Amino acid sequence: MPQWRQGLTKSLHHTRSMPESRYFQLATVDDKGLPFCRTVVYRGLTEDNQLIIISDTRSEKFKQLQDNGHAHVCWYFAKSREQYRFGCKATLVTWDNDSELLAFHWRKLSDAGKKQFLWGEPGTPRNDGSALHVEGSFEKVPPHFCVILLTIETVDYLSLRGNPQYREWHQKDAMGNWISQSVIP
Amino acid sequence: MPQWRQGLTKSLHHTRSMPESRYFQLATVDDKGLPFCRTVVYRGLTEDNQLIIISDTRSEKFKQLQDNGHAHVCWYFAKSREQYRFGCKATLVTWDNDSELLAFHWRKLSDAGKKQFLWGEPGTPRNDGSALHVEGSFEKVPPHFCVILLTIETVDYLSLRGNPQYREWHQKDAMGNWISQSVIP
Repeated sequence: MPQWRQGLTKSLHHTRSMPESRYFQLATVDDKGLPFCRTVVYRGLTEDNQLIIISDTRSEKFKQLQDNGHAHVCWYFAKSREQYRFGCKATLVTWDNDSELLAFHWRKLSDAGKKQFLWGEPGTPRNDGSALHVEGSFEKVPPHFCVILLTIETVDYLSLRGNPQYREWHQKDAMGNWISQSVIP
Repeated sequence: MPQWRQGLTKSLHHTRSMPESRYFQLATVDDKGLPFCRTVVYRGLTEDNQLIIISDTRSEKFKQLQDNGHAHVCWYFAKSREQYRFGCKATLVTWDNDSELLAFHWRKLSDAGKKQFLWGEPGTPRNDGSALHVEGSFEKVPPHFCVILLTIETVDYLSLRGNPQYREWHQKDAMGNWISQSVIP
């Protein structure tokens, strides 16, 4: 297990009762070269260092990652005053690619979570005051439900606890082994 | 005052004792078109809707914003379960542009805050184990200290409290007046 991942495991354990252990910020670039950033729910980390999130193929972020698969994750743990910044490559998983994985993550969602995929196209105008109407069944995986795997390629770690602060850069060498270097914060 | 700003004022008041009221995430794009994201400290909001942050002209984000002034801010308030996403244009203020503004923000920094500008070039290798050496005086504004003003041009607001969630899009019309539209979350 790379050193940064041992650190992340500790950070997650230390903040497990805090909201910040459940989400992070994901930055992408659109087809005009503009940056976008939003909070997304953390759904796990695979053995080969892929962060798992779920998404909607009709969403802004899915379209942006289709055009440009580079993503950057910023995960700040307020309680431990630590920040992990992950340089990532995104893999978009839709029903056609891996229906089993999608069914697995769909089943794990609460009803409230499933509803978000069933009340219309995200970002389109809503008639003010009207209730959102859920269409479709909670049992069936909607065709626009998808999973995004973010393969971590670089790690920029910062701890604000000490004086001075501590910052460490992690990347893979030519052999694919993780190497790290302490850098000036 | 635009409607979204009244909302932000309320959110800040409601979460004033929480760490999330003091920082947000800032996304930028580098000269290769890759996204970057990091947590930055909120230093205020001007009357004409510019978020104020401080930075270092030797930092990654300053160089990225010099090349591409488009920035995106993501501010998530865990306590009130609200997210503001601001599409912004950055204005970089250095000593040559406005020494008075820089001196003002430098004076407001704590000694620990000032130290971060005096222990070497951010992101460069640090000799492991060695203490960081502060060079320069706390009294004198260092030449690489700068202020970044982020002019808010669009607002994508999301409230996760209700069921269903509530999302609202804000932008300026051709006359420069803020208009808003409820959208599907």
